[in-house]
Amino acid sequence: MAEPSRLAVNRRRLLTGGAAALAGGAVLNQSGAAHSATVQSGFGVDVEPFHGPHQGGIATAPQSHGLFVAFDLNEGAKADARRTERETVAAILRLWTADAARLTRGAPALADTEPELATRPARLTITVGLGVELFDRIGPAGSRPRSARELPVFDVDRLEDRWSGGDLVLQICADDPVTVAHANRVLTKNVRSMATPRWRQAGFRNARGADASGTTMRNLMGQVDGTANLTAADFDDLVWMSGPVHPGLAGGTLMVIRRIAMHLDTWDELDRQSKEFTVGRTLDSGAPLTGSREADEPDFSLMHNGIPVIPQNSHVALAHHRGTRERFLRRPYNYDDPPGPGQASNTGLIFATFQRDIDEQFLPVQRRLAKFDALNQWTTAIGSSVFVVPGGVRTPDGYLGQELIG
Amino acid sequence: MAEPSRLAVNRRRLLTGGAAALAGGAVLNQSGAAHSATVQSGFGVDVEPFHGPHQGGIATAPQSHGLFVAFDLNEGAKADARRTERETVAAILRLWTADAARLTRGAPALADTEPELATRPARLTITVGLGVELFDRIGPAGSRPRSARELPVFDVDRLEDRWSGGDLVLQICADDPVTVAHANRVLTKNVRSMATPRWRQAGFRNARGADASGTTMRNLMGQVDGTANLTAADFDDLVWMSGPVHPGLAGGTLMVIRRIAMHLDTWDELDRQSKEFTVGRTLDSGAPLTGSREADEPDFSLMHNGIPVIPQNSHVALAHHRGTRERFLRRPYNYDDPPGPGQASNTGLIFATFQRDIDEQFLPVQRRLAKFDALNQWTTAIGSSVFVVPGGVRTPDGYLGQELIG
Repeated sequence: MAEPSRLAVNRRRLLTGGAAALAGGAVLNQSGAAHSATVQSGFGVDVEPFHGPHQGGIATAPQSHGLFVAFDLNEGAKADARRTERETVAAILRLWTADAARLTRGAPALADTEPELATRPARLTITVGLGVELFDRIGPAGSRPRSARELPVFDVDRLEDRWSGGDLVLQICADDPVTVAHANRVLTKNVRSMATPRWRQAGFRNARGADASGTTMRNLMGQVDGTANLTAADFDDLVWMSGPVHPGLAGGTLMVIRRIAMHLDTWDELDRQSKEFTVGRTLDSGAPLTGSREADEPDFSLMHNGIPVIPQNSHVALAHHRGTRERFLRRPYNYDDPPGPGQASNTGLIFATFQRDIDEQFLPVQRRLAKFDALNQWTTAIGSSVFVVPGGVRTPDGYLGQELIG
Repeated sequence: MAEPSRLAVNRRRLLTGGAAALAGGAVLNQSGAAHSATVQSGFGVDVEPFHGPHQGGIATAPQSHGLFVAFDLNEGAKADARRTERETVAAILRLWTADAARLTRGAPALADTEPELATRPARLTITVGLGVELFDRIGPAGSRPRSARELPVFDVDRLEDRWSGGDLVLQICADDPVTVAHANRVLTKNVRSMATPRWRQAGFRNARGADASGTTMRNLMGQVDGTANLTAADFDDLVWMSGPVHPGLAGGTLMVIRRIAMHLDTWDELDRQSKEFTVGRTLDSGAPLTGSREADEPDFSLMHNGIPVIPQNSHVALAHHRGTRERFLRRPYNYDDPPGPGQASNTGLIFATFQRDIDEQFLPVQRRLAKFDALNQWTTAIGSSVFVVPGGVRTPDGYLGQELIG
């Protein structure tokens, strides 16, 4: 799904002047050209490209750790005698671009107070999005994509303000949690006079290197999660905006972040067969109940004694796309936070998705799930946000969102 | 520092009947005997031994993720008509032992509701300790080690009840965060009728494989943290209890867990040289100010123009042992939690240490630091707990703490 590293590194080298730009003794990874036995090795030095037509962290093969931070503009900084709200946002995006371009290649941010924590990017990506209300206020007139608006509230949702909305979002992903913590600190600190974190969600998948077989991630209910996902060839059709959109949105996408709580205590009261009927897949291999391997296409028409083998209200039957336009990129992370008072667990999924059109791709699936999904009894959306993700930065002197609000 | 894996695996095989005991297709790691190309590979299958004279997670080379969970006995379960408090604790320890013995070797716990999450132990260790007050109530009369008591409150401490104390503690460490989450869920759930989490601290170090050079971990202030640590030869002298202790404590140790908040915002206002004077080490290599490499022994007598090169109130000058008896095992993890209202960051260190005698080893150092450490201006202990860690389980039919309270 990710671009091959060799291409990525080569493109980056064109933009930044080559491997010498790497700081702190970091070297290119195996797929790059340079390597020295005398400096540190390990995947900490692996680099994902920052510059290009798309932002990183979307087509990038998911890293082990993901931190999602939504920001609200500070009341006082929104607009004053000195500058407009749009200029404030442009200032934030310029700072984030400068920091992200350096941190993702293993160089300390400008005025980095802990430069040693920046030397191992471990495939760091930093993805920036604009909240739909903010976009309406500061974006070029009429440029907001039609489907870029908050999702409707579904009957089964129990949305909390503290996990929803936001003027801006950062998705910070890397294979090393120390890298993520440092990037978050730098990016949050440098804009604090203008914006303040509204919510923050820390997520994880299996550690890089724990499983060389490339199995799909399991969520904390034990299910294989994310089997029906996109391949590299799908991105132009289904993820990246193009055609009659504002030039600043070309190569961009729309991001949905749903925080989905799992009710593990009641889920664990189910026997194994009931769990598998609920999901529509076997728990061990993740194969659909009509198949034997995870990648097998589910056969929703297969009957046994006149009853569908995959129940019609199972999660897979409803989540499965009905037509190509219902496909989108799922890029979820697990969360497992300390339980609040009286809670036995505080566990779930940070369900991040990327699509070019939420109305056509995400919502038809979500409507079916909200209405019929057997899994709803054990999962509840408690947060929901939609962000407009501008295209990537194509030149070293550009910044994220420049064509939209510069 | 850890025992060589080959020995570890061989000892485990003696106890459990060999590699066939590994479940879910897991295989022994490179240093073990068995390997098959047809099953999953990667470090997820690496196993740390559970049975032996000592508990795991102490001499074990620190894993990437560490979760510390303190429990209080439920009021109703402490003692009733059916059983004494001691019998309740014994029941908990029997359950934890059975689960830990299975989970650490990659086998699902008994009645594991998500068995697929158990197949990649990734060097999982589960370490169990007893709070000092509980130990006093249920341990054999007179058996509590003299120094096993809560630490005095130091002037610079700002201890919060919600990060301190506890009847029991679990330290759950692995190189994969999914493994840690699942182990915590199993261990917490299975005893919930008897004990409830009091506090929970999630910590991390650099990801396994991010740096093959074996550099010491950096904390989130950017300092190399844990240079002056023990080597394998030190454990019998400095960590494991032996001699005139109760047989159930032989091979055990005492654990201190301090939650140390870092005031990064003011720390970051310091220039680099001031930071290095405060710590007594350079920030880039971690070398003492009198040396050039991290491992160089600090020379506290070296003067420059009549002034000590390493300031006398620097952290390293005060933390450095004065005599062998002041050495102990530091096994810290970083934390980086969502900031509370009005907080810019919520970052620090879970400072876990292991020693056979807190009075002789930990306290002299801590007293110096509390009084004079220049770093105190930017760090504050907000939690403190002491636990008695029984020796390991030597036979498959034994359980943790059996000789103490069985």
